[in-house]
Amino acid sequence: MTPHVTAATVKAADRAHVFHSWSAQALIDPLAVAGAEGSYFWDYDGNRFLDFASQLVNTNIGHQHPKVVEAVREQAARLCTLAPGFAVDVRSEAARLIAERTPGDLDKIFFTNGGAEAVENAVRMARLHTGRQKVLSAYRSYHGATAAAINLTGDPRRWPSDTASAGVVHFWGPYLYRSAFHASTEAEECERALAHLADTIAFEGPQSVAAIVLETVPGTAGIMTPPDGYLAGVRELCDRHGIVFVLDEVMAGFGRTGRWFASEHWDVTPDLICFAKGVTSGYVPLGGVAISAAIAETFATRPYPGGLTYSGHPLACATAVATINAMEEEGVVEHAARLGEDVLGPGLRALAERHPSVGEVRGLGAFWALELVRDKGTREPLVPYNAAGADNAPMAEFTAACKASGLWPFVNMNRTHVVPPCNIGETEAKEGLALLDEALTVADRHTASG
Amino acid sequence: MTPHVTAATVKAADRAHVFHSWSAQALIDPLAVAGAEGSYFWDYDGNRFLDFASQLVNTNIGHQHPKVVEAVREQAARLCTLAPGFAVDVRSEAARLIAERTPGDLDKIFFTNGGAEAVENAVRMARLHTGRQKVLSAYRSYHGATAAAINLTGDPRRWPSDTASAGVVHFWGPYLYRSAFHASTEAEECERALAHLADTIAFEGPQSVAAIVLETVPGTAGIMTPPDGYLAGVRELCDRHGIVFVLDEVMAGFGRTGRWFASEHWDVTPDLICFAKGVTSGYVPLGGVAISAAIAETFATRPYPGGLTYSGHPLACATAVATINAMEEEGVVEHAARLGEDVLGPGLRALAERHPSVGEVRGLGAFWALELVRDKGTREPLVPYNAAGADNAPMAEFTAACKASGLWPFVNMNRTHVVPPCNIGETEAKEGLALLDEALTVADRHTASG
Repeated sequence: MTPHVTAATVKAADRAHVFHSWSAQALIDPLAVAGAEGSYFWDYDGNRFLDFASQLVNTNIGHQHPKVVEAVREQAARLCTLAPGFAVDVRSEAARLIAERTPGDLDKIFFTNGGAEAVENAVRMARLHTGRQKVLSAYRSYHGATAAAINLTGDPRRWPSDTASAGVVHFWGPYLYRSAFHASTEAEECERALAHLADTIAFEGPQSVAAIVLETVPGTAGIMTPPDGYLAGVRELCDRHGIVFVLDEVMAGFGRTGRWFASEHWDVTPDLICFAKGVTSGYVPLGGVAISAAIAETFATRPYPGGLTYSGHPLACATAVATINAMEEEGVVEHAARLGEDVLGPGLRALAERHPSVGEVRGLGAFWALELVRDKGTREPLVPYNAAGADNAPMAEFTAACKASGLWPFVNMNRTHVVPPCNIGETEAKEGLALLDEALTVADRHTASG
Repeated sequence: MTPHVTAATVKAADRAHVFHSWSAQALIDPLAVAGAEGSYFWDYDGNRFLDFASQLVNTNIGHQHPKVVEAVREQAARLCTLAPGFAVDVRSEAARLIAERTPGDLDKIFFTNGGAEAVENAVRMARLHTGRQKVLSAYRSYHGATAAAINLTGDPRRWPSDTASAGVVHFWGPYLYRSAFHASTEAEECERALAHLADTIAFEGPQSVAAIVLETVPGTAGIMTPPDGYLAGVRELCDRHGIVFVLDEVMAGFGRTGRWFASEHWDVTPDLICFAKGVTSGYVPLGGVAISAAIAETFATRPYPGGLTYSGHPLACATAVATINAMEEEGVVEHAARLGEDVLGPGLRALAERHPSVGEVRGLGAFWALELVRDKGTREPLVPYNAAGADNAPMAEFTAACKASGLWPFVNMNRTHVVPPCNIGETEAKEGLALLDEALTVADRHTASG
């Protein structure tokens, strides 16, 4: 079918028949993409874009990595699909490779199709393991869009699907730049955020709290790297009250932060880890939950009441095996760490010094956020929380400037995130920073000094 | 990795690291499967199994269909993944091919990874479209295992994840063999089931009911082909009260009943259709919702608040395109219809006459259920509802007998379903019926006359 297609035919059928995620269907104008390789993709007119978003922060090894593509093709020829009840070589091997990389005794892997289903199942496991109903999660979080996952989510995407009765309580996490606790140092923010969480648990009733669900490093919400001691403090609160500690590493896992799992940075072992995205770089949809020995034991002789047709899908598992092995062979995780330390961190901090619109730079590895503000002193966001239409114009202009220059940015609220493939070359990364430098002049115009 | 694996290594890694769906992890002994082709799969000892379950009723074109495998391989080489915001040739084409086959004006396709997410999004669309919260679904149903989907589900898999507050009300559907309405003819069952549904709507408050969600032909719950007039009656009730009519065709769609969508048998057009499984035969995970013009219009200028990283995944969409085209070229849908009329229907009814354990045969196309009973007169099920352990022994013995003979059956409660690939050859289908004939003698021993 592909030789005859044009941007026009692709767009026409898209507009006639494709209903897009998170969109007003009549107000979008999707770019028709013709191809992609490594850190770039391109349209039908030959315009190339440097992908500083890794699509939706999932192509951790870039587009069309030859080893992984070959593995998909080989497995397709061998065995595409098989029901979850069987033992299958690639399913066993994917589980083994993931378990080898998870911290502590999180050695059993329940596979799903993606991150939302991973969170759904983690919550179910926690509730059944503890016999409790309430789940605590953070404002400024995203955990997926199915019913349990969207109720955990702490951003405006939750509002239209909110179920007050879903048993979820939201609390505030550490975020020094906009501290909920009026703290002035990371240590103070950490201490106060933990006290706030302890209070929330006390007033919700520790005996009714099944789980605390946190993104190890909150992703779309703003890449708020937690202060040292915060995750260890949450671990301690969970231990004290018999609460299951769930880390959502859907975005932060598989190399994004310069470690296989972001929790390694703080040497904390949760009870459950949710993963997706980077595990296959999205080449074939896959997600899952890594499960501690204690929680797995709960379902040793009592059936686990959850599942799905494609749990441990062979094609997806073969893709995970190839992705993990390629990342290992090519040192992609270490590369991401160095990229953060040597290129992205210094480069972005230099941009912040030059641009009045850059209020803060945060991040690590290939996982960075720039907080855009009207005024560095007041920290007033460049656009209000959840702005739309004219209110969002400054960010829309900035986004358009990036795209016009050939840089595809990740943008959320008043932030742009710098989240390229974890294996992006240093030259490409620097090229992206240069394009970002230009585009930020557009944001600068909306600042107090602009 | 594959040349060196053995059943033992696959099993060992599986038991060490794979957490299985719907299972007590220490009590299962998963068969290590080495390969599959067409209607067969085999283990490492050379034992072949005729797949009368189509895995989980998803391999509608059998295993490793060469045209579809080739399409997966080609698309993998071209472009594995791309974010949902773009227009992509294979995404556009998959949406167009599906929309061409859906009834009425259900011409917009929202893609998900599988059936549960399709149901989740259909419910969200219905609630936002109507501004109402309650959703009605049937006892004896399965709609998936994420939070909204599992609450809709009307079988014991719902119990551990039940949220009384999820806004779901269950009602009884038509099922003459075990009529909830003491009916004695299909016409009477239909009339009484519609009156029951009308009463339920009246007492729940029509103005608070967002949607009625039904499997067109309930699948795992027992393939209860609805009586003529039932679905039209539900359509009329929905129209009268402004309720969104959602048909879940995850199992029944894409050829399973001898039509592209089962609703065609009764010439009924719902407002939303959920699909998955057969759309790619599971080669790459894919699901979705087909959306009516009126509901799509609700989200024309108001953003649809739902989405997922892999919505319209290119590799999955290319697989759907190839699957639909192969089914069209090879007349798979028509084949399934003839198979039901000429082979499975007559063959299974003949078994029912010979075996005291077969209480009823129901179905159409490649979608059949045998209701196993202790006594044809009393219709007492061969095992009680949701039986486990010793209570379930008769069905466990029957299942073991099937597998020992080389037939892989689909078994649920006191039923076995005959749901082979829709393109299974007549000879293979007859071979399967012969194996089933043998295995039923094991069930017969548990009958009054056994």
